[in-house]
Amino acid sequence: MKTRIHNFSAGPGVLPEPVLEQACQDLWSHGDHGIGIAECSHRGKQFDEVIAAAKERIARLLTLDDDQAVLFLHGGARTQFYQLPMNFLRGGRRATYLDTGAWSAYAIADAKIYGTVDVPFSSKANRYDRVPEPGEWGELPEGTTYLHYTANNTIAGTEFHYVPEVPDGVWLASDMSSNFLSRPLDGSRFGFIYAGAQKNIGPAGTTVVIVRKSLLPRANVDGLPKMLQYAVQVEKDSMLNTPTTFSIYMIERVTAWLEENGGLEAIERRNVAQADRLYGIIDASDFWKGMSKPGSRSRMNVTFTTGDADLDATFVKQASAAGLSGLKGHRSVGGLRASIYNAQTDAAVDALCDFMREFERTHG
Amino acid sequence: MKTRIHNFSAGPGVLPEPVLEQACQDLWSHGDHGIGIAECSHRGKQFDEVIAAAKERIARLLTLDDDQAVLFLHGGARTQFYQLPMNFLRGGRRATYLDTGAWSAYAIADAKIYGTVDVPFSSKANRYDRVPEPGEWGELPEGTTYLHYTANNTIAGTEFHYVPEVPDGVWLASDMSSNFLSRPLDGSRFGFIYAGAQKNIGPAGTTVVIVRKSLLPRANVDGLPKMLQYAVQVEKDSMLNTPTTFSIYMIERVTAWLEENGGLEAIERRNVAQADRLYGIIDASDFWKGMSKPGSRSRMNVTFTTGDADLDATFVKQASAAGLSGLKGHRSVGGLRASIYNAQTDAAVDALCDFMREFERTHG
Repeated sequence: MKTRIHNFSAGPGVLPEPVLEQACQDLWSHGDHGIGIAECSHRGKQFDEVIAAAKERIARLLTLDDDQAVLFLHGGARTQFYQLPMNFLRGGRRATYLDTGAWSAYAIADAKIYGTVDVPFSSKANRYDRVPEPGEWGELPEGTTYLHYTANNTIAGTEFHYVPEVPDGVWLASDMSSNFLSRPLDGSRFGFIYAGAQKNIGPAGTTVVIVRKSLLPRANVDGLPKMLQYAVQVEKDSMLNTPTTFSIYMIERVTAWLEENGGLEAIERRNVAQADRLYGIIDASDFWKGMSKPGSRSRMNVTFTTGDADLDATFVKQASAAGLSGLKGHRSVGGLRASIYNAQTDAAVDALCDFMREFERTHG
Repeated sequence: MKTRIHNFSAGPGVLPEPVLEQACQDLWSHGDHGIGIAECSHRGKQFDEVIAAAKERIARLLTLDDDQAVLFLHGGARTQFYQLPMNFLRGGRRATYLDTGAWSAYAIADAKIYGTVDVPFSSKANRYDRVPEPGEWGELPEGTTYLHYTANNTIAGTEFHYVPEVPDGVWLASDMSSNFLSRPLDGSRFGFIYAGAQKNIGPAGTTVVIVRKSLLPRANVDGLPKMLQYAVQVEKDSMLNTPTTFSIYMIERVTAWLEENGGLEAIERRNVAQADRLYGIIDASDFWKGMSKPGSRSRMNVTFTTGDADLDATFVKQASAAGLSGLKGHRSVGGLRASIYNAQTDAAVDALCDFMREFERTHG
């Protein structure tokens, strides 16, 4: 098999090699079915088993309760930016959004189309360098439907290391696209969770949506096409139309890989260890500057800079030549970014640490 | 490599074996990039080349003009059922829809949410056994924005063998999900074409949308989130969010396979030959009954029956045991269905013809 380089792409991101090896087989002929996994009917037994297993694994990993439905929807997380408020804010309702990054801001813009949006916390003025302290956003206004937050901010490299508390009657909604299943989480605390697959759990093209069934009667579905009604998607079990079957297959295989390797506790240990090594190098020298505040640092996207845009560009170029790909920071903030999702290998992080030390030695 | 059986699934459907063989390699490491095709950034050079080539191949195969943009959108064809009228019918406009199958009917239901919908032709009363003759729908009402038709009806097994004429000022819109790129077509006659990938050109999860750029200023985008505005998707070149990269890669490879094997003229000859063999068996005996009217017969989905539901069930069971999969008719119409999309092999059709003859001999 061909050699793979070290891939630090922010997404679509690196996938577990054992899963890729199996997928390469199953794309040709899946299990003993004699039909490739991308070529089978979504309504047959072959795929039924795959999607059922994917749902079960996610429910088990996140300790969901029976009131929570796991869906695999089209459209990316960005479709949820409007679908969530379209269902739950229309008709004069309000929600609170925490503005911790570009993706939060896009979610807020879409929500404002449909209802009243309160934004009591924003770190935008400081280039989104941190998430709030617990409760820093103060009391939620009377009549708040839900509190929405972006659990990990891919661009700025920040992450919530806690689950916000909400008062009775308000439910929690979270965009977990970029740290989904990267650490233990009590999923049963949420009313609504969504996560685009392409960071931690599979190829782009499907979004895991976890919705609390008892909330569905409160949705306002007047004038909504069926595709956009969560209640219909729950009733049809993600099969109102043909779902992204190959992505769902990959999610099943990635979550199997997680469960077979110690679950969320084990992957968290590995993620913390990898992140600590990179932040350790950044903190040990004045040559490197972290771009997010220490208490908010992401374990998924490590953002840093030499403080000199030209030198950063040299780093990206030389790293790429050395087989370390995808280290350029997002165009909106500049600098450098190493994305170390669940599937990132220790070998890749080793290689990056070595490269950073050598780069500092020769350019410091 | 493992043996593959003969797969007649109506969708997701069979893919070309040379493409699958290459995909199995590229999933691990794509070309000389050292990164799997599902793991690379959608904004890097690696994927740029893929999506640009996919667009160019589709434009070339359909002889599109410079005013037509090729997009790869999330959500399946069913998202286009509402997105098209949401953009082009709101504000008191009207469109004409031809009702030739369940998918037409779903498109009509969604369009009615947003505007006035005229349905001057429906074959529903006869189980959608035919499409209209050219012009059978009569004059379009004054002020009609577009004429919408479903080019191939997967469930009933009917197909338009012509492109409808429209008067000046009215544009043509077509759902080509199940016969896309299966025959020569002058795509420049259309204002809007859409096709879910999972029948003829790739895995489920992306929809090819071809929109005429000069129509975009006529869209009513008041209060629409960006994801649902065609103008934004055109401006962002399908990259407002992460597109379904693996599906787009597969579309590029399938369209390359088409171009390398004689283009749409060659695939049409093969499709006609395969369909003729199956319809020939059906017509040569009283044992088999075709389920669609001869002039409307689909080259993609051949629907037939013994006229006896139990005997049909026996056929499906015995065929499956003989390695011929996916021959059960859609649950809404019953009977039998052989889907013979572009990638269907002559070997599979040979095997099905042999099986049908033997089944008739033993059960006739």
